[in-house]
Amino acid sequence: MQNKDYSYYAIIVAGGKGKRMNQDLPKQFLRINHLPILMHTIKAFHHHTYQPQIILVLAETDVAYWKSLLQQYQFDVPHQIAFGGDERFDSVKNGLDLIHEENAVVAVHDAVRPLVSSETISRCFDTAVLKGNAIAAVASKDSVRRITQKGNEALNRAEIYLIQTPQTFQINQLRKAYKQSFQSHFTDDAAVVEKAGFDISIEKGDQFNFKITFPEDLILAEAILKSRT
Amino acid sequence: MQNKDYSYYAIIVAGGKGKRMNQDLPKQFLRINHLPILMHTIKAFHHHTYQPQIILVLAETDVAYWKSLLQQYQFDVPHQIAFGGDERFDSVKNGLDLIHEENAVVAVHDAVRPLVSSETISRCFDTAVLKGNAIAAVASKDSVRRITQKGNEALNRAEIYLIQTPQTFQINQLRKAYKQSFQSHFTDDAAVVEKAGFDISIEKGDQFNFKITFPEDLILAEAILKSRT
Repeated sequence: MQNKDYSYYAIIVAGGKGKRMNQDLPKQFLRINHLPILMHTIKAFHHHTYQPQIILVLAETDVAYWKSLLQQYQFDVPHQIAFGGDERFDSVKNGLDLIHEENAVVAVHDAVRPLVSSETISRCFDTAVLKGNAIAAVASKDSVRRITQKGNEALNRAEIYLIQTPQTFQINQLRKAYKQSFQSHFTDDAAVVEKAGFDISIEKGDQFNFKITFPEDLILAEAILKSRT
Repeated sequence: MQNKDYSYYAIIVAGGKGKRMNQDLPKQFLRINHLPILMHTIKAFHHHTYQPQIILVLAETDVAYWKSLLQQYQFDVPHQIAFGGDERFDSVKNGLDLIHEENAVVAVHDAVRPLVSSETISRCFDTAVLKGNAIAAVASKDSVRRITQKGNEALNRAEIYLIQTPQTFQINQLRKAYKQSFQSHFTDDAAVVEKAGFDISIEKGDQFNFKITFPEDLILAEAILKSRT
């Protein structure tokens, strides 16, 4: 349930250049169901009942294109824009700099996870208000192995969670965490905040909330959206 | 490339009862594109250029239903049937008992991974001939955490592989491994074979080769099949 003592924010991180897609266009601009992925993602937060303020982190070189898309699609969801940095770490940090309140709870979300459900967003915000943070995750359906120096070894599948976004934090945790220097193992915000000394709370994500990384993911995302309408 | 010194087999494991689907019918019998999932899976191996002999492991209580499906769909791919056991471990073991050759290479495959590609099957067979075994796997796109006694901790995503099937072995490795007693961490064949003292080789799987576990996976599988035709 929304806590009126807090301001709610969503930082949507679209700074990346999408090295893995067979397309020239950064993947957050690819269309699914005739709308850029990034607009689906922004709408997921804009339509959420907590009405978070939206901060979009975009590569500076993509801003002009984004503005042309806003016009082309007559997309009028209010949002602020921050510029992306070299690493995802720098992009989140730049987005964070636009928040000046003390009692804020912030969902950091990948632009390329357009199918996040309203329930997942609620759970993450609510748990972050209670516990300081909440990271959407799903249990692994597959067995899991880890590469070791000698070869590889089985991990206990029951202990393994695949981490999604939103990764949601009270602002004080993010502010402290993002004062650290970048480290190469910072693949998500949870790793940054954990390194700053905070315990991480895992929340239930959803199977459809996958990251659009490979061309086949576009087919999946389209199919899911079509099945919803 | 096919090695003529070896006989090629596929053991397709469909013994399970599908506790996680909101359906009464075991999930391997659900239809995608108007054909039971299990028939898609069998066809993937039957159409492979190495023409593996197919052994299907079915719960004994499902055999009559399967035979009715064969008739209904006029499905005439030759295959032997073994009965499933209490655990996946027992099912594979029963399938293995139907192979009497010494120079065999055996792909064990989940019935509910119908979208496995011909390339993945080839890679696994070829590597197993060379190295003794080969396990299809994909790198994790998501950050990964492990539940610990104190809470949870980030793992190094670059080291994590999500394991698929086929898991492919020279028969001597499987025979030795399946003489062991069942243990609860045997979530796949690689864990069984590893416990018997063999090193495990990881091979490139594919993103579409996911396990149909949740109802939403049916939507994804249908979409992918439609995009192929």
